[in-house]
Amino acid sequence: MPVIEFWYEFASTYSYLAAMRVQDVAADEGIEIAWRPFLLGPIFKANGWETSPFNLYPAKGRYMVRDIERQAAARGLRFALPQPFPANGLHAARIATAGIAAGWCPAFTRAVFSAQFAGGADISQIETLRVLLADIGTDPDAAIEASQSPEVKEDLRRHTAWAQEIGVFGAPSFVTADGEIFWGDDRLEQAVVWAKREIVLYP
Amino acid sequence: MPVIEFWYEFASTYSYLAAMRVQDVAADEGIEIAWRPFLLGPIFKANGWETSPFNLYPAKGRYMVRDIERQAAARGLRFALPQPFPANGLHAARIATAGIAAGWCPAFTRAVFSAQFAGGADISQIETLRVLLADIGTDPDAAIEASQSPEVKEDLRRHTAWAQEIGVFGAPSFVTADGEIFWGDDRLEQAVVWAKREIVLYP
Repeated sequence: MPVIEFWYEFASTYSYLAAMRVQDVAADEGIEIAWRPFLLGPIFKANGWETSPFNLYPAKGRYMVRDIERQAAARGLRFALPQPFPANGLHAARIATAGIAAGWCPAFTRAVFSAQFAGGADISQIETLRVLLADIGTDPDAAIEASQSPEVKEDLRRHTAWAQEIGVFGAPSFVTADGEIFWGDDRLEQAVVWAKREIVLYP
Repeated sequence: MPVIEFWYEFASTYSYLAAMRVQDVAADEGIEIAWRPFLLGPIFKANGWETSPFNLYPAKGRYMVRDIERQAAARGLRFALPQPFPANGLHAARIATAGIAAGWCPAFTRAVFSAQFAGGADISQIETLRVLLADIGTDPDAAIEASQSPEVKEDLRRHTAWAQEIGVFGAPSFVTADGEIFWGDDRLEQAVVWAKREIVLYP
């Protein structure tokens, strides 16, 4: 089965759109999704940005909100930009990383995005994440403790550095096994076509 | 018939993709396109950028080239990034502006984009544009003279200021009669749906 890496940042509005549908699209298309939570902060800093470009460039920020409102409405999703934006996604990304091997990363990821962008929750707070972990049926104390282990912290650092190294500069990004990058929720369909094509080219 | 304003900059790679298909899509959908050549330079300068963000942020620039290569291949278009990039599109934008009332703006626009991104031509040069005007059956001397009139120069300045005022920050942008902005070649279909929906809402 072809694999697509789904690189996402918890503060990213377009990652919200992608996270809520990527599993369904993959199931329909016979694709396996490798969930790759990472942090955009270090990549933005390397560009000289201290915050999201949506804050640095107000016209772009206003457009993004309107664009997401339109896409969300078309998909039956609620959307409001949380304040402050962008949220600090460090704890959420560490917990999600801890959940990859355990199998609950996708459910946790969707819960965090939905709480933040549909529900206005402050996902920078461990207490918010604790409630969401319980909601998806995972032991919150064990998950949070695992997320604070040196191994998980190091995994997230490594993943973030790796994203930057392969050329990821924004989120969401879909990466196929041969290293093609597709940036943006609106490129998911093209990533799927590409991933399936590989199989034909390199059986 | 619903109208969509098609705002484009001659140096813009994604404007190339849009320009080569917008008329066909519009004809199929019963939409009228209002061609709106403008200059991104003043808008970039207002953001503090002295050149294209694709040059300022190399990872983003590399991705853009790859993304355009994929889209162009899927549509049977050739593509190579011209050097230097971005080209100075001032003369081309003035000539295109002169051609709006005369009716040859769309043909000239496609000719310029194709010469630049499929053919590697230097579209900053009047002599390049002279050849393209002849190719589309327009009197080059008359068109170039018109493009250098104070009225046309002022029209282009006004259009560019207007784009910025309504919230356009990149190219291509599609704007519907009620002021909705759709940014990017990949939003053309959504702009079409929106433009047609208006008719139902406000008959």
